[in-house]
Amino acid sequence: MNLELATQQLKRLRDDAQTCTGNGKVASYIPELAKEDPCQLGVSICLPDGTILSAGEADKPFTLQSISKIFSLIVALCQNGQQYVFERVGKEPTGDPFNSIIKLETIKPHKPLNPMINAGAIAVAGMIRGKNVQARLDCILDMLRKMTGNPEIQVNHAVYCSEKKTADRNRALAWFLKDSGVLTGDVEETLDLYFQHCSIEVTAKEVARLGMVLAADGIDVYTGDRVFPAEVARICKTFMVTCGMYNASGEFAIDVGIPAKSGVAGGIMATVPQRMGIGVFGPALDEKGNSVSGVNLLESLSKEWNLGIF
Amino acid sequence: MNLELATQQLKRLRDDAQTCTGNGKVASYIPELAKEDPCQLGVSICLPDGTILSAGEADKPFTLQSISKIFSLIVALCQNGQQYVFERVGKEPTGDPFNSIIKLETIKPHKPLNPMINAGAIAVAGMIRGKNVQARLDCILDMLRKMTGNPEIQVNHAVYCSEKKTADRNRALAWFLKDSGVLTGDVEETLDLYFQHCSIEVTAKEVARLGMVLAADGIDVYTGDRVFPAEVARICKTFMVTCGMYNASGEFAIDVGIPAKSGVAGGIMATVPQRMGIGVFGPALDEKGNSVSGVNLLESLSKEWNLGIF
Amino acid sequence: MNLELATQQLKRLRDDAQTCTGNGKVASYIPELAKEDPCQLGVSICLPDGTILSAGEADKPFTLQSISKIFSLIVALCQNGQQYVFERVGKEPTGDPFNSIIKLETIKPHKPLNPMINAGAIAVAGMIRGKNVQARLDCILDMLRKMTGNPEIQVNHAVYCSEKKTADRNRALAWFLKDSGVLTGDVEETLDLYFQHCSIEVTAKEVARLGMVLAADGIDVYTGDRVFPAEVARICKTFMVTCGMYNASGEFAIDVGIPAKSGVAGGIMATVPQRMGIGVFGPALDEKGNSVSGVNLLESLSKEWNLGIF
Amino acid sequence: MNLELATQQLKRLRDDAQTCTGNGKVASYIPELAKEDPCQLGVSICLPDGTILSAGEADKPFTLQSISKIFSLIVALCQNGQQYVFERVGKEPTGDPFNSIIKLETIKPHKPLNPMINAGAIAVAGMIRGKNVQARLDCILDMLRKMTGNPEIQVNHAVYCSEKKTADRNRALAWFLKDSGVLTGDVEETLDLYFQHCSIEVTAKEVARLGMVLAADGIDVYTGDRVFPAEVARICKTFMVTCGMYNASGEFAIDVGIPAKSGVAGGIMATVPQRMGIGVFGPALDEKGNSVSGVNLLESLSKEWNLGIF
Repeated sequence: MNLELATQQLKRLRDDAQTCTGNGKVASYIPELAKEDPCQLGVSICLPDGTILSAGEADKPFTLQSISKIFSLIVALCQNGQQYVFERVGKEPTGDPFNSIIKLETIKPHKPLNPMINAGAIAVAGMIRGKNVQARLDCILDMLRKMTGNPEIQVNHAVYCSEKKTADRNRALAWFLKDSGVLTGDVEETLDLYFQHCSIEVTAKEVARLGMVLAADGIDVYTGDRVFPAEVARICKTFMVTCGMYNASGEFAIDVGIPAKSGVAGGIMATVPQRMGIGVFGPALDEKGNSVSGVNLLESLSKEWNLGIF
Repeated sequence: MNLELATQQLKRLRDDAQTCTGNGKVASYIPELAKEDPCQLGVSICLPDGTILSAGEADKPFTLQSISKIFSLIVALCQNGQQYVFERVGKEPTGDPFNSIIKLETIKPHKPLNPMINAGAIAVAGMIRGKNVQARLDCILDMLRKMTGNPEIQVNHAVYCSEKKTADRNRALAWFLKDSGVLTGDVEETLDLYFQHCSIEVTAKEVARLGMVLAADGIDVYTGDRVFPAEVARICKTFMVTCGMYNASGEFAIDVGIPAKSGVAGGIMATVPQRMGIGVFGPALDEKGNSVSGVNLLESLSKEWNLGIF
Repeated sequence: MNLELATQQLKRLRDDAQTCTGNGKVASYIPELAKEDPCQLGVSICLPDGTILSAGEADKPFTLQSISKIFSLIVALCQNGQQYVFERVGKEPTGDPFNSIIKLETIKPHKPLNPMINAGAIAVAGMIRGKNVQARLDCILDMLRKMTGNPEIQVNHAVYCSEKKTADRNRALAWFLKDSGVLTGDVEETLDLYFQHCSIEVTAKEVARLGMVLAADGIDVYTGDRVFPAEVARICKTFMVTCGMYNASGEFAIDVGIPAKSGVAGGIMATVPQRMGIGVFGPALDEKGNSVSGVNLLESLSKEWNLGIF
Repeated sequence: MNLELATQQLKRLRDDAQTCTGNGKVASYIPELAKEDPCQLGVSICLPDGTILSAGEADKPFTLQSISKIFSLIVALCQNGQQYVFERVGKEPTGDPFNSIIKLETIKPHKPLNPMINAGAIAVAGMIRGKNVQARLDCILDMLRKMTGNPEIQVNHAVYCSEKKTADRNRALAWFLKDSGVLTGDVEETLDLYFQHCSIEVTAKEVARLGMVLAADGIDVYTGDRVFPAEVARICKTFMVTCGMYNASGEFAIDVGIPAKSGVAGGIMATVPQRMGIGVFGPALDEKGNSVSGVNLLESLSKEWNLGIF
């Protein structure tokens, strides 16, 4: 890969994709997110040798939101093993919106269909062990700091508070899970952990590094250290394909073909096995909650560089 | 009506119905209710002149459970008027189990279909005004004390605590309602009020008097006082027909034809317009949550005395 | 009842209600129905002595549509008995639109919740016996001719053809019922019978007479003959309350309180037990499929003459 | 790859997997399928150079059933293009059973979520062009004959008839699609085409060749001819991951990680991009409709030979 040429292409594709930000809207249900400038679009690519290419707002901090579901799942799998985790949360895509509660009632037993919908991610948060909420959060933060090489990674307090105040649907999901025996501990503490890990602040550059660790099957390419088992990386990449882009995952798999996880702050973490991690930040969202320009950019990149796994 | 003959008939029908208690089970999800003897069956009838006929365990205290939904609705209607109440809760039967959450998500706007399902009754509890939970509860208790002539009517504390501990599905419903803007105040306070009014303790004799007030369009036949407007009585009797017996209401309307409301402690309050109030207590429930022997007894009574309204 | 005064009141209430026809729209999914003038409003009342009062377009022919569901149910009950019928169709209101298929899949066993929704009425049509479709239809026509005293009552062929051409959702319901074993005979024949009985043509005056037979528990007040058992009349009146007005039945029960069945051609048949039958024709429909001015008129009539049963 | 060693491994894994056939049951709702011996397990692997390795019942004919959904989709895409096809059928996994009708009603517009569920595949069958059913079927048969090199490939008439007789749920789906405008032509003809293409008879060996064409992005490795565009192959492989194994697709993606499509006759076609096509035949099914021993065998193969794509 000619880095200079690649950077030029990246800039061009980023600028093209940026023109479609007008087709989306920033998330409005979390007031703090509604303040973002919808025209932003940042992208970074991390290569197996650690090289990082960027274009646009790649250093602008934003919150992980649903991208954090991958990292809470990694921690839960490392702490509890696959059997424990998948007895409490399924592996199937749903076809429903991320905050839907219907299948919790219709599916017997009442366990969430997968860890990428809110119900499933709350169930996963409930599996993260530690003597209190801070200690449980630190499990996630420590891993993210190691993976990004940034020891300053932290929760954005304003977003966390904004989220906590407007999270009643998530509370409904959590209490339903408590009723079904999927959540066993203190519900408010688990919700607190969930809101906090959604509010962890990163940049597109950092997300590219996170994606590269997954692309390298759990190895930090900067240090050569294994951060988590290859098996766990494989599980995450599979979920990113089958349910990483909310109820547009199937479409994204066909049109783009790269394992990816989006968040309503406009971030997307994508992972091209063995080849690269990609971080995107574009806060204007489509009606399913994915970054409009981010999806557009990943589709162009996938086609131009032949990144699809299918 | 020959009272002696009527009492004999009542005893006979009660004894016949009592034989089918074996087909049901006491509610087990609230541990305190699981302690009841399933073989009990008490019945009382209150006539327009105040006469009370009884058979079986008519003086055995039990908790109102869902029967309380009628009385919280009466208070909410008296305090807020029809328009306010029915902007927040609908008037339609659902065909779903009483604790179902599905239609809250599928129906737009997200308001409960009627005040007799749990979601609707929690919404109604949220409309009861007062400076704190105790004051709001007192609105219901005061009315029940007046209607029964028993100033001692009170919450059964053990049942209330048992209920509160096992009420996570109701919490899920309440937070969903909060998210949808149907509930506006403090959710835990409203749930607390809801659990308390479900745990109010009465006897079949007292329930017969409650039913007679509704039969007399809101007039207490003992004092001649109007307890609530005739319009409110009419609304309650209608709901008792269309959705008073959980998702067996349609069947009950055809087979028995009397406005009635049941509770999972085994109580049923029935109302024959102008003619009588009926209180039943039979804690063995069918799979939809209605008293097995109570339904059987009301069907026999309705046929023998021609009580159906259709 | 002073007949002159009553007729004056009826005309006034009809004229008042007629002003709200603008809030509705004629059914458009059946092309033949879309041709009606939406401003029409006719009403007739049949009293126990056979007297008929009318106002507006009381002699204008229209098709029964869903009102026919009552009469196919009567025939099915008379031919097969309650046990047979209710093993194949339930007694519960649904809270869903009349053509919904969802509950056929979610409810086990897969039987329609009641005979007033399309799925249930198709199941009922399947129970009507006869050597061919015409013979089965004649069972319904003969009964209607007897009840109205009009031997000319017939299917409107143009509406029947229009209906048949646009009935694919009903075909879907029928094949689902066939798959579930609820329908056992030839599906297309049963659908044909269903479309034909929906297309039977009547006037508001005739519908008032039909309603009076139900009000008199199955007796034709003109001849004194029993047309069907009182038990069957009772069942029909109960269904008219719990699910006669589509998924606005609960609201209608509270606001009007009279057993009634509506059809998408704009007809409503109402029945005040022992007191009167009412026929209404107002083709402008609300979004649930009920005559806008018809519902308005029945509400005024019920209040002015105190006709509610609750 | 040492072919002798590979064949030995394949035999061993096949024999191991064969022991779990007792955990499944042959499909019983299509009587003709119920006659199969549940203990059978055949497997074939086709390599890029055309070599075929086999073990067990690899030459036993069975019907494609849902595996045919891939080939009708290929024909429909080639005849109509992506835009036309995906305006009428979606790209999202559903989380529901393959014959579910619920989402057809709840999703607006009413189009099937993907072409791998029955509703979606019937919609796809409706898009296949030709002057009559036979001509439309020939489009699929011709392609299969070319891909397998077997000009004798044909519909199993007994299975087709059996299927046609027991397909009322599929008829319900088709008429719902007709009502929604997704199906536009003659419904019974399209159903006939659908039943016929489900009943096409193949062997595991042939299925391995079919899978190899997909693995080679649409190239027949025997002749070097392109059978369909690479783009179409990519779309099919993506659907095989997100919804190829009914509502166990997510689990299969995690546990096995190979694009695959199963059928209720016990067949599975799997595709390892660039590396191999795999055909499996094991008629004992799990409760979701997938071959019990087939899934087990593919999981072992994937682990032993590292075939997963994630």
